[in-house]
Amino acid sequence: MMNARPLPSYLVQRYHGWRATTHAENKAWYRRLAEEGQRPRAMIISCCDSRIHVTSIFGADEGEFFIHRNIAGLVPPYAPDGDHHGTSAAVEYAVTVLKVANLLVVGHSNCGGVRGCHDMCAGLAPQLEEKTSFIGRWMDLLRPSYERQAGIADESERLRAMEKEAVLVSIENLMTFPFVQAAVEAESLTLHGLWNDIGEGVVECYDPETGRFMPV
Amino acid sequence: MMNARPLPSYLVQRYHGWRATTHAENKAWYRRLAEEGQRPRAMIISCCDSRIHVTSIFGADEGEFFIHRNIAGLVPPYAPDGDHHGTSAAVEYAVTVLKVANLLVVGHSNCGGVRGCHDMCAGLAPQLEEKTSFIGRWMDLLRPSYERQAGIADESERLRAMEKEAVLVSIENLMTFPFVQAAVEAESLTLHGLWNDIGEGVVECYDPETGRFMPV
Amino acid sequence: MMNARPLPSYLVQRYHGWRATTHAENKAWYRRLAEEGQRPRAMIISCCDSRIHVTSIFGADEGEFFIHRNIAGLVPPYAPDGDHHGTSAAVEYAVTVLKVANLLVVGHSNCGGVRGCHDMCAGLAPQLEEKTSFIGRWMDLLRPSYERQAGIADESERLRAMEKEAVLVSIENLMTFPFVQAAVEAESLTLHGLWNDIGEGVVECYDPETGRFMPV
Amino acid sequence: MMNARPLPSYLVQRYHGWRATTHAENKAWYRRLAEEGQRPRAMIISCCDSRIHVTSIFGADEGEFFIHRNIAGLVPPYAPDGDHHGTSAAVEYAVTVLKVANLLVVGHSNCGGVRGCHDMCAGLAPQLEEKTSFIGRWMDLLRPSYERQAGIADESERLRAMEKEAVLVSIENLMTFPFVQAAVEAESLTLHGLWNDIGEGVVECYDPETGRFMPV
Repeated sequence: MMNARPLPSYLVQRYHGWRATTHAENKAWYRRLAEEGQRPRAMIISCCDSRIHVTSIFGADEGEFFIHRNIAGLVPPYAPDGDHHGTSAAVEYAVTVLKVANLLVVGHSNCGGVRGCHDMCAGLAPQLEEKTSFIGRWMDLLRPSYERQAGIADESERLRAMEKEAVLVSIENLMTFPFVQAAVEAESLTLHGLWNDIGEGVVECYDPETGRFMPV
Repeated sequence: MMNARPLPSYLVQRYHGWRATTHAENKAWYRRLAEEGQRPRAMIISCCDSRIHVTSIFGADEGEFFIHRNIAGLVPPYAPDGDHHGTSAAVEYAVTVLKVANLLVVGHSNCGGVRGCHDMCAGLAPQLEEKTSFIGRWMDLLRPSYERQAGIADESERLRAMEKEAVLVSIENLMTFPFVQAAVEAESLTLHGLWNDIGEGVVECYDPETGRFMPV
Repeated sequence: MMNARPLPSYLVQRYHGWRATTHAENKAWYRRLAEEGQRPRAMIISCCDSRIHVTSIFGADEGEFFIHRNIAGLVPPYAPDGDHHGTSAAVEYAVTVLKVANLLVVGHSNCGGVRGCHDMCAGLAPQLEEKTSFIGRWMDLLRPSYERQAGIADESERLRAMEKEAVLVSIENLMTFPFVQAAVEAESLTLHGLWNDIGEGVVECYDPETGRFMPV
Repeated sequence: MMNARPLPSYLVQRYHGWRATTHAENKAWYRRLAEEGQRPRAMIISCCDSRIHVTSIFGADEGEFFIHRNIAGLVPPYAPDGDHHGTSAAVEYAVTVLKVANLLVVGHSNCGGVRGCHDMCAGLAPQLEEKTSFIGRWMDLLRPSYERQAGIADESERLRAMEKEAVLVSIENLMTFPFVQAAVEAESLTLHGLWNDIGEGVVECYDPETGRFMPV
């Protein structure tokens, strides 16, 4: 394994800073978490984007949120075909093993994944149509949304609509998992759709009454 | 979409606290991030576990790390078969679009995913062998490791060895992606294997000289 | 005083969130409360248990409830022996200085203190019988209840009966305080016995007509 | 038990409001807390005063803090004499059973208990010197502080100094409990002294470096 390298020094320094401060003051709690296991109250599915810190927005402490992050924060539909499905495995673990009470899907503005889907569907990014493009094949999950929003003339509005619809598509897909549906029906799990405006720091939540995302 | 619910109030309060403090202090930076896009220096692949906060350990600010989190922080091998591959899509985006300089794979102690793989391979968790078990099929990625470590008599040592080997398996799998291999060979990308002891807060890094994980 | 440490950062963040939101919105009221003193309408005696938030259940705002919390929410009998009696001091302050109109004693399901008393009386927790066990000596207050409920075959029913009886024992003990008795007789104070089912969120109130706890 | 009365209707209304909102949206979490038990990270000892909401200041959710409240938030010294000691029982339960990681003692401005101690020691409240005064006997715990601060000419400064010293006296007394001392020495428990200005909403924390309370 000659390809693994030592940790870059900018990270070494930060780690030692964390050890000397946050870790030092919470040592007892970290030990208990290690010994007794995690018991998170919520699962959060959000984007890999470096600008989205749900742990910061929700003041999340160690032990509170089980977090899955992928491109655009998408959930594919239930497909138990024996292949590796990282997102489905994470959802299964959170719902059936950890029994989280809340599951939040968090989309965001300026999402590169949604932009890629948009450009691919608009014929502007033919390389994403290649079978070998993992990004393109992942964003296929959102392809129907492009067609539904194609009527919006303004491009930035169209992208925003797709970003928000991505959250709803994921929640719909979540409901195709039998264990999610069962937990929702048993009232042991609630689903929540959120969208975060990175620049303005506004979080909107989907409101089932009005069918729209509303500022929290 | 009647299944989406309003945001629980404990999260509403925390969000408003974040708005009024962290966001208020960093408004200008968030706006620039929104306008100019992200330019993260590193990608981190780690576990969904609620007890692992790589953003905290590495003092990560908004915009610094592109983070993918899945069960056990695994990377599957290159398989461009046209299906949805969330992890591969995230790696492709980080390496080919964002051109991150460092890619860290972070494993950890007390990992429920690795424990599940261990128990499945040891015949103790037959339900994980079912074709419909997403957790089981995801942890199949680590199955060869169970056989390699089966000789370790002490169970907790065996689990720890599997947790660390999971990191190396992921790095090996990363090298099967042509764009990763090319970036590593062009010296525009470095790979790093880390393992975090939750209770003690110690981070170990794989050292290619000695072939062992060493405290940072 | 080298044993006192700085505030852990997870609490620092929350405090600043509160300052910037709840406090900022209610500044005028907090200043009046500081200047004019408190004038609570009720005293609540409840358990220290982290799962019981009477302030949340009763939508309590700053200034409304004078709250004493101890293990199991117990009140000892009147014993003016010159020693330190924290619960008696709190009752005396609420009734004679603040002249609260209502005094609520709130028990709850899954009470660790009541469970401890039960196990101690059943011979299952000999360490609680030690003179040095503060928990055991505190729960002695409920010892007569164990004997009265010992006839209930099902353990969880027996515990529930003891949890509810603890509330009545406390109310009986309250009536042994001359100033409580006088205030009740003067109709300037009413006593109320409540029991809260944590899991179901049901509050039951003791009904003197039927001699039973009834859902509110 | 004819002295227990039905719940006043202003509380009935609030309870039903809570049921329909907070409880309804957190049902799953409350059930898990009931089934799996509490695992609070911290114990808080604060005053019964209706104006102090540590749960609000620290955004405390159900399950997070084990809270003991008594007059002035005092802890008496270790005295295993076989009597009922509510505060000592609460500390014992938090430290030895729940194994909390942090223990916060929170004092506050305009504290009626501290004022009572001050007036009693100054000869202004002879009724508190009576053996039968539970308030007086409880506030005896703070009597030595009156003498230490008696040199401060301005009364409101003197009271403030006593309020802050009360926090330190309690932390000193906490260290006389063998199980507290052992946990602090084993680094499994940290103690924190806080003082809250009700009117201004400022929280100060005792800083062992400077020996003073400093705004957080």
